[in-house]
Amino acid sequence: MPLRSGPLIVPAAVMKRLPMYYRYLHALVEEGVERLSSQELSGRMGISSSQLRQDLNCFGEFGQQGYGYRIADLYQAMCQILGVEKRYKAVLVGVGNLGKALINYEGFRRRGLVVIGLFDSDENIIGQEINGLTVNNIRKLGEFIKQEQVEVGVITTPAKAAQEVADILAAGGVKGIWNFAPQPITASPEIIVENTHIGDGLLNLFYKLKEK
Amino acid sequence: MPLRSGPLIVPAAVMKRLPMYYRYLHALVEEGVERLSSQELSGRMGISSSQLRQDLNCFGEFGQQGYGYRIADLYQAMCQILGVEKRYKAVLVGVGNLGKALINYEGFRRRGLVVIGLFDSDENIIGQEINGLTVNNIRKLGEFIKQEQVEVGVITTPAKAAQEVADILAAGGVKGIWNFAPQPITASPEIIVENTHIGDGLLNLFYKLKEK
Repeated sequence: MPLRSGPLIVPAAVMKRLPMYYRYLHALVEEGVERLSSQELSGRMGISSSQLRQDLNCFGEFGQQGYGYRIADLYQAMCQILGVEKRYKAVLVGVGNLGKALINYEGFRRRGLVVIGLFDSDENIIGQEINGLTVNNIRKLGEFIKQEQVEVGVITTPAKAAQEVADILAAGGVKGIWNFAPQPITASPEIIVENTHIGDGLLNLFYKLKEK
Repeated sequence: MPLRSGPLIVPAAVMKRLPMYYRYLHALVEEGVERLSSQELSGRMGISSSQLRQDLNCFGEFGQQGYGYRIADLYQAMCQILGVEKRYKAVLVGVGNLGKALINYEGFRRRGLVVIGLFDSDENIIGQEINGLTVNNIRKLGEFIKQEQVEVGVITTPAKAAQEVADILAAGGVKGIWNFAPQPITASPEIIVENTHIGDGLLNLFYKLKEK
């Protein structure tokens, strides 16, 4: 295992590229690609080979001069770096279309997110079965988190419900919250909050279209 | 209007923060906030006030010493900067849960994306009516784009269909593609492609949980 031991200091700019490395490496493993030079690998990712080498150097020694990278090894290392090898017990709150899309997304389970509970406040949705899980009443959320020692909460509710749900998740003891509601949420500093703003991509697209 | 005229050179790091500025400013307008100091505004966004001032300076003169920013004016300027004031005719291809979630997302219309056509290849989905639009057979996609002069295509298909759909969109003459399929797509350089990887947020969350 070529990973550096001890605490790492990884620049924020490198951290931002890790998900991209993960995605490309996973796709290459699926394709059955065994080995690529840093030029070939970086070319597929649309970055320079010196950037690729520099980024990977933050984590350890990968690849060999004149031989390139063993894709499977590099993918395994990236999984370790990202902490994707661990399984996290999760609940998802807000079982609308976006919630359903996420529940069915194969990539989440592969990355280690194991959804064990679904919650909603809508009587028409409570009781529905999705992917083998029955949607529960949100009133049971706090108790469920404690009982099952849930670590991650995914919020796919409308904006106005998001903070209230985040508070229940935090009080229940989750370590991380992944928020999709179009409303940033806050929690105490010991809880990691990741806000995913789906609409940001649209703004990027429009900005580039306008600049053209 | 305090916006600079002429072509702007905006650093990539600033560009990345524009969607965040847009989001916060929109929320503040909705809240009815009229005026904030740069300290108050940057505090809400979790950045330093010098960064805020520096970023906004790329685009023109905003705010007044000792008075702060007029939120409505700043929001209007941000809309102009981002090109959100324009309307774009769009089609959405792949009407699964994610597609349905996007069609119903109020924020897209507000940002200027006007979806005028829905397409799928699944006989069980074709003919369904969603938000007043009937889902069409994907075989009609190319013709529809040309006839209606569609400018943006949104791809919410499974990974393996994404590139084929992108090729149809490109041949039809769209200017931009917003891809949600977990598979990066390619198109000729004159077409702007924005790949949104929903799962990246999960990797960021796991990385931070692991580092804690």
